[in-house]
Amino acid sequence: MQAARLHEYTEEMGEALSIDEIDRPSPTRSDHIVVEVEGAGWCQTDNHIIEGMWTDYVPQELPMTLGHENAGEVVEVGDEVSTVDVGDKVLCHPLMTCGQCRACRLGDDMHCENGEFPGLSTDGGFADYLLTSERAAVKLDDVSPVEIAPHADAGITAYHAAKKAVPHLFPGSHTVIIGVGGLGHIGLQAINAMSATTTIAVDLKDDALSLADRLGADHTINSGDEDVAETIEAITDGAGAEQVLDFVGADGTTALAPDIVAPGGDHHIIGYGGDIHEPSQALVNGEFSFVGNIVGKYTELQELVSLVESGEMHLETTQYGLGEINDVAESLEHGEIEGRAVIVP
Amino acid sequence: MQAARLHEYTEEMGEALSIDEIDRPSPTRSDHIVVEVEGAGWCQTDNHIIEGMWTDYVPQELPMTLGHENAGEVVEVGDEVSTVDVGDKVLCHPLMTCGQCRACRLGDDMHCENGEFPGLSTDGGFADYLLTSERAAVKLDDVSPVEIAPHADAGITAYHAAKKAVPHLFPGSHTVIIGVGGLGHIGLQAINAMSATTTIAVDLKDDALSLADRLGADHTINSGDEDVAETIEAITDGAGAEQVLDFVGADGTTALAPDIVAPGGDHHIIGYGGDIHEPSQALVNGEFSFVGNIVGKYTELQELVSLVESGEMHLETTQYGLGEINDVAESLEHGEIEGRAVIVP
Amino acid sequence: MQAARLHEYTEEMGEALSIDEIDRPSPTRSDHIVVEVEGAGWCQTDNHIIEGMWTDYVPQELPMTLGHENAGEVVEVGDEVSTVDVGDKVLCHPLMTCGQCRACRLGDDMHCENGEFPGLSTDGGFADYLLTSERAAVKLDDVSPVEIAPHADAGITAYHAAKKAVPHLFPGSHTVIIGVGGLGHIGLQAINAMSATTTIAVDLKDDALSLADRLGADHTINSGDEDVAETIEAITDGAGAEQVLDFVGADGTTALAPDIVAPGGDHHIIGYGGDIHEPSQALVNGEFSFVGNIVGKYTELQELVSLVESGEMHLETTQYGLGEINDVAESLEHGEIEGRAVIVP
Amino acid sequence: MQAARLHEYTEEMGEALSIDEIDRPSPTRSDHIVVEVEGAGWCQTDNHIIEGMWTDYVPQELPMTLGHENAGEVVEVGDEVSTVDVGDKVLCHPLMTCGQCRACRLGDDMHCENGEFPGLSTDGGFADYLLTSERAAVKLDDVSPVEIAPHADAGITAYHAAKKAVPHLFPGSHTVIIGVGGLGHIGLQAINAMSATTTIAVDLKDDALSLADRLGADHTINSGDEDVAETIEAITDGAGAEQVLDFVGADGTTALAPDIVAPGGDHHIIGYGGDIHEPSQALVNGEFSFVGNIVGKYTELQELVSLVESGEMHLETTQYGLGEINDVAESLEHGEIEGRAVIVP
Repeated sequence: MQAARLHEYTEEMGEALSIDEIDRPSPTRSDHIVVEVEGAGWCQTDNHIIEGMWTDYVPQELPMTLGHENAGEVVEVGDEVSTVDVGDKVLCHPLMTCGQCRACRLGDDMHCENGEFPGLSTDGGFADYLLTSERAAVKLDDVSPVEIAPHADAGITAYHAAKKAVPHLFPGSHTVIIGVGGLGHIGLQAINAMSATTTIAVDLKDDALSLADRLGADHTINSGDEDVAETIEAITDGAGAEQVLDFVGADGTTALAPDIVAPGGDHHIIGYGGDIHEPSQALVNGEFSFVGNIVGKYTELQELVSLVESGEMHLETTQYGLGEINDVAESLEHGEIEGRAVIVP
Repeated sequence: MQAARLHEYTEEMGEALSIDEIDRPSPTRSDHIVVEVEGAGWCQTDNHIIEGMWTDYVPQELPMTLGHENAGEVVEVGDEVSTVDVGDKVLCHPLMTCGQCRACRLGDDMHCENGEFPGLSTDGGFADYLLTSERAAVKLDDVSPVEIAPHADAGITAYHAAKKAVPHLFPGSHTVIIGVGGLGHIGLQAINAMSATTTIAVDLKDDALSLADRLGADHTINSGDEDVAETIEAITDGAGAEQVLDFVGADGTTALAPDIVAPGGDHHIIGYGGDIHEPSQALVNGEFSFVGNIVGKYTELQELVSLVESGEMHLETTQYGLGEINDVAESLEHGEIEGRAVIVP
Repeated sequence: MQAARLHEYTEEMGEALSIDEIDRPSPTRSDHIVVEVEGAGWCQTDNHIIEGMWTDYVPQELPMTLGHENAGEVVEVGDEVSTVDVGDKVLCHPLMTCGQCRACRLGDDMHCENGEFPGLSTDGGFADYLLTSERAAVKLDDVSPVEIAPHADAGITAYHAAKKAVPHLFPGSHTVIIGVGGLGHIGLQAINAMSATTTIAVDLKDDALSLADRLGADHTINSGDEDVAETIEAITDGAGAEQVLDFVGADGTTALAPDIVAPGGDHHIIGYGGDIHEPSQALVNGEFSFVGNIVGKYTELQELVSLVESGEMHLETTQYGLGEINDVAESLEHGEIEGRAVIVP
Repeated sequence: MQAARLHEYTEEMGEALSIDEIDRPSPTRSDHIVVEVEGAGWCQTDNHIIEGMWTDYVPQELPMTLGHENAGEVVEVGDEVSTVDVGDKVLCHPLMTCGQCRACRLGDDMHCENGEFPGLSTDGGFADYLLTSERAAVKLDDVSPVEIAPHADAGITAYHAAKKAVPHLFPGSHTVIIGVGGLGHIGLQAINAMSATTTIAVDLKDDALSLADRLGADHTINSGDEDVAETIEAITDGAGAEQVLDFVGADGTTALAPDIVAPGGDHHIIGYGGDIHEPSQALVNGEFSFVGNIVGKYTELQELVSLVESGEMHLETTQYGLGEINDVAESLEHGEIEGRAVIVP
């Protein structure tokens, strides 16, 4: 089968992956499943993997097939698989989890101690077929795999952060969404669906802000034209925002926290381009937190699929062939992808 | 009456405050009370105020009487005060809160929008008498004011952080206490009283670690002699600590977070000597948070007094006269105060 | 001034109250305010008060002016009132709370140990003027008092229960609303505004179910025509509803719990016409709870006003003069009031 | 092998079970394990099963081996078992859970949609060998199986209820433990280990109250001698108890709720001998809840084992041979078992 693989870390997105012919995977455990990939989302994290940014955090062996936002049809199952069948359409949670460690037992399976992450630690879904496990599969009834693939990672990451923010929101509160891209436009909708907060979308691009506006943002701020902190202060009557979802995570966006987060509130770190530099005293004085966020739980992916099926979540995607994959990488690097790119092998 | 007052910001602790003769305060509102100070704790924050570190955060007019950990006897009350009487012994919450703003209405009165903070924004308790309000007073039944005064700020700050940590603790979890000084030794006991976690105390001084040991710490680490991250990794079997209470807040202690906090855990910032410098990616990868902490709620001060009265909270104090106050300031600056210093006017 | 007063407990709604001429109230404390009543909602609880159902629970002295859902214009203030002024339009939280007891300090002011409840324990708002306190007043900017009055009790009671239910809801969950009357139609909208659950409205009357449908209920069940438990089982695929809001509280509705509540879920008791009779084993086996609900918090009334001002909450009301008040009582007793009746003195 | 089996439902405890010779079980799935039973606790629920009280709630086929509090040594494992080995000592969670349904995925595995409950729905542990699954096994390092067996059900049920109560407790709060028997004496210790609440133990027997006293209860009430509601009112200064753990669940104990539960508090139903009869209005007026409780989660069993291993949990047990099992049943029926009976096959 064909697969888009990384052979060495590089800054050159335009030639990063090569299309190789490799063997189709097969189940080696009773709970394995093989999925024929119908859609696989391209993620900013793929760019970061290509640059070698994850080598300090997870074990990687090159060459490796990238692609961790996968959906398609089950074509083969291990001999004790009971919850999906050959022929089922599925969206794949990015982690293959063990179901036995304490994190899995608590439902925090994104912290599985024995997990594999296809596309990050093993071969992923920019290929004709993907090997994963029963525990990763969410069955799709009413949505086609190619339309929903990016929710496998972009979606649940944004939804996971939104779900952590929602308990702190109330009618009359304010929520800031920094960065209305692939993740941010999902986070905004998740916040809207699950709370009655007032939303403020911040981005450098007018197109992104138009999208935010169409998706129900109450206020939009172009960070190139306006002083973000001052504008938020004006909108919130000096109180600040109870929750900030930072889908950029750059030095400049994390530095906004002391000025824009309400006392006791949270600045969620979801994007991870840059650094936090902040005096401890600032966190003490405002009693705010920098809250780390990673990909969501399996049950959160189920919930997100429910939102999609009930029509409360719109996903902006464009489809590309496997042969166009390096162009996609380069375009995203230059901020030229609207919404989310989906590779259709 | 006599009062220890700051006339100008300085790095010279040994001559920072002068003992002035000023007028005794009187109630100007129906809810005001005047307390004859029997004990007033000296706090690291007093050193920070003297250095001018709070001028960016709260309005201050010099000269100002310091002292925000106050306890004593009520000697005069405004004409609608109903919950305390002349003659009552009271511990004073550091904030005079309005009771009307949303933060007060929610019980988060430490974020009162109209609060005054005697000793930080108005005249405090290093004096014969203190003006505060009915809403600040916690009545004492079985404890003497001088023995409990430091709980007014050191105590509830440590207790407040502990109470935020406790819901994340469970038998088998680990909690790290960094810095077993005035606040840390209270935090350790609060954690022990309210959870069945395994505690790990970290300090540079063997005396502090001996105190931690006596107060029930399960493990102690001398950060001068041992590699803190490695030792915690060994104790926790590689899992990290679910909660870290950082009573130091220096560059070096906040930098430990990625290595010692368990996935999904919190690094609480309570001390505030230094800065946080951390890549956003570290917070994403470990899904940990830097959680800001400020002084606690009025109801938390009530709870802390309950802990003291039931014998589950031991406070290490040494008493000093008002005339020794600059010596206390200097000794604390050099880390030479064991437990907590209490000024007895 | 004129006031509709109860002189003796009776089952005869049609002659329950008499319109008396009594003195206009005046402030006797520094935090009192006098409100000229523009609208006062009639509540099922008013019928229950008339029947004497509250004599076991709160102290009452007859004659007493009823009316606990009050809104109007401030016409006089005590001398330390600072958050409202003469001329302000306000919605009155039904409780005059002390702001000093532990419940008030925690934000659970509906459990104030020293509270007065005008219309239940002291003279209420079916009169030209009402005496209440600053802490009860929520300022209105964009809504007229007469349109919003019933939210003072019906509204926050329904909102309070909804807010307790919301943390347990998620996309894909189910919520049952039993009784789509004055409270139920508010509860349904609050659930919709603050969650992405699937709602199932249950009522005996088709008109009520039509209203539910217009307000966004996903399913409606006429309990006269259909087997409620079976229908809910079918809708939820055998899983039951995570949360049930029972605005009726009759023997027959509470008895539904074991069959309709999902494992670990809650059956909220808000209406209180009848009794619970249930084997302890049923609660053990299904691990469900009967959750009591009373009127909401002051901050919840603020949040509800925000929902109204942002257009997410529609209130069904009909206006009546003070002279028609006994007809209203009788009509409600016979279930002939659509939405909520508002008395306009 | 030998097994104590129920052939027909009966009220006659003294002859309820017969010791039969049956085949030793073997793994039929890759995750099955066989445990040589070293200890199996006898539970009040065994009496209820014998009486037929569970036939309405779970499918049962007689004859069936009872025994759901099992511990022993692993003697055989299915071919994909990875977390326990032959020779390991284990405590068995009572449920064999699927690990795939939403409840399991959330960590609420006690609500597993596909679970088997050996001793309740399939053959249990009053036998030489028990068939269960890897997901049920908690490895024991420092404790012998026979000493810890009752924690498998009595223990985690009590711990589970305690863990639901703890977030509502604070220093100065009150917790009532009704019934200091097999479950109650564990619940009391769990509350003490995880909170700083004041505990009040209620029982009919002085021996049980002596045990409560030794285990740290702050107050004890003999319900035969004293008016329980009045005594609790006096102890709590009229406020009531924030949390009540009712390990009896009789008509008389559930009827205490309106008088002993503080506003907003919970009356936990854990024992299930009788019924709840209560006007809805009582739950509304006091805003209290009747909270159902079932057996705990797998992770809670891990936590409980941690408590045991750290010496914070003492279990009162007496050992009996398999041949004495009907005597045990009869003695418990007459309330003559102190602590917990453990059958040693």
